[in-house]
Amino acid sequence: MEMGENGLLKKIYGSFTAGGKGLKKRKTDGAFGSVILGPGDDAAVLRIRAGTRLLLSKDDLVEGTHFERSWADPRRLAARLLAVNLSDLAAMGDVKPLGCLVSVGFPADLPADWALGFLRGLKKASSRWSVPVLGGNLARSERVYLSMTIVGSGESRLIRRAGARPGDILAGVGPLGEASAGLDLLRRGGAKARRRGGVPRWALPLVRSFMEPVPQLEAARRLAPLLTSMMDNSDGVLRTAETLAQRSGVRLRLSLSETPASQALLRFSWERGIELRRHQALGGEDYGLVFTLPARRWEEARRRVPAVYRLGEARRGRGVESPWAATKAFEHFR
Amino acid sequence: MEMGENGLLKKIYGSFTAGGKGLKKRKTDGAFGSVILGPGDDAAVLRIRAGTRLLLSKDDLVEGTHFERSWADPRRLAARLLAVNLSDLAAMGDVKPLGCLVSVGFPADLPADWALGFLRGLKKASSRWSVPVLGGNLARSERVYLSMTIVGSGESRLIRRAGARPGDILAGVGPLGEASAGLDLLRRGGAKARRRGGVPRWALPLVRSFMEPVPQLEAARRLAPLLTSMMDNSDGVLRTAETLAQRSGVRLRLSLSETPASQALLRFSWERGIELRRHQALGGEDYGLVFTLPARRWEEARRRVPAVYRLGEARRGRGVESPWAATKAFEHFR
Repeated sequence: MEMGENGLLKKIYGSFTAGGKGLKKRKTDGAFGSVILGPGDDAAVLRIRAGTRLLLSKDDLVEGTHFERSWADPRRLAARLLAVNLSDLAAMGDVKPLGCLVSVGFPADLPADWALGFLRGLKKASSRWSVPVLGGNLARSERVYLSMTIVGSGESRLIRRAGARPGDILAGVGPLGEASAGLDLLRRGGAKARRRGGVPRWALPLVRSFMEPVPQLEAARRLAPLLTSMMDNSDGVLRTAETLAQRSGVRLRLSLSETPASQALLRFSWERGIELRRHQALGGEDYGLVFTLPARRWEEARRRVPAVYRLGEARRGRGVESPWAATKAFEHFR
Repeated sequence: MEMGENGLLKKIYGSFTAGGKGLKKRKTDGAFGSVILGPGDDAAVLRIRAGTRLLLSKDDLVEGTHFERSWADPRRLAARLLAVNLSDLAAMGDVKPLGCLVSVGFPADLPADWALGFLRGLKKASSRWSVPVLGGNLARSERVYLSMTIVGSGESRLIRRAGARPGDILAGVGPLGEASAGLDLLRRGGAKARRRGGVPRWALPLVRSFMEPVPQLEAARRLAPLLTSMMDNSDGVLRTAETLAQRSGVRLRLSLSETPASQALLRFSWERGIELRRHQALGGEDYGLVFTLPARRWEEARRRVPAVYRLGEARRGRGVESPWAATKAFEHFR
């Protein structure tokens, strides 16, 4: 299968996660369990009763694609697995996680420590975020895969990817570029990185950003009443803006002049000789949020969540205006 | 990891799917989303409102473990994936499927036909059983994995694995041994079997039993009011009885003298020189149901679902009494 090129990938991808036609709004006849939002947003939405919605989403971590056993600590992988799934819920607004289900594929010769480490990490993460593990599946597999489904509940007003309007402010919350720097360090550090020997001390916060991203549930809860559109920035802020622009039918002007960057990230970009803002625009893996809101509500948003930062604004038109646009083909399949 | 032997597997397996302590009954304080049944039964159960329950379950198909691409038609694999998940819901009683989520791991060099075939099969199965695909995830993976989460709703009276009482009749519905014969034929037929050349014409119903098992949703709905315990027979009827006996704290006497067997299965067992009833007791993969009910309700069960068959009865004590007991180590990890 040729990836990221032919129509096939789009077709498959569209069927599973993000229909090109935008959100598929189905029956909203009010029946119990009717589908309000199918594939295509951060989470699917079912009607449970007047004013109450059930949210469901799925995200996987696959050995050889998202991690290597050589450098990934299984306890931290469990933390990442839950965090990236919780991020899907946060991206829908004011959502309370109810629980998760976990399918794992483990090789027959997987060291016992690895499996137990994952289990301990899952229990710890489950307890940290108060998300019970409801069930799951264990299968034999040549390489490790970790597949999670997250379930949450929310009120009827959820924030979709479509909804940004001309004049809105584009903004974000959470780290930018920290996690992808951490991933790069882990890959280069290899087996030593797992034991923290392959990564310099100053860079450990970057590794932590990758392995244990913090889902923005609380920020999403506080900001939700003010927002017109939202999604998480796991694909990088540039691609995220492209998706929001496409779904909302607006043009987004993107600037990263006001975004945060840790001391470790500044040093990372300096030592590597890479442009910080470009790295932040394309990086991904951070699981912060990108959202839009009417300009008149910006001050209120800052009061509610002081860590929000401005990323630009929405205008009439299409696409994203930024110094980094069109630098890379859209590549979702990983 | 040594499988099926040491305590590790039990520990992991118990944490994810079937706690050795029996059902974990948690908070039933009536709050929205509170967990009524965690890992350990066919599905997890959440409280949604008085009298309404949300059910969630997960089952995967993994290349190299559950199928080989050489002999498995991807359209039929999609049918099987949905069916085995629906079976988990059926095993809880009167449950209405609401939707499913699908994570797939596809190799970079997967032929386009394969991916599209799976997609078409999924759409067809989704339509056949009226189970919308709510969302999912697509990841790159060295070998194919197919991971589904199924969501359903039911009334508050669900049938658990625990609940059988001394004096109950043990019974079943659905095929026994047909699917495992089909799997055997596919494995031996190899690449030819996919194009139906490697399997004799008379044996095609057996292959169909494996690739497209029929979830017993309707039978479960009709029988539910009469039952004391239930689970699906995917691990084979002997192991299923062992689990029901253990969870319910009863002794089950198992006999297969009244169970159905297709013409194809009779011929299969004759040509292979294997004992039919032993094959049916150990086979698995069928996704029929095994359940218990008070003896006085047996005639009513037969009226409601004429295809039910008697498998034995429950007594005081522990374990399963059968000609095939203790012939094989309990092996869940596959």
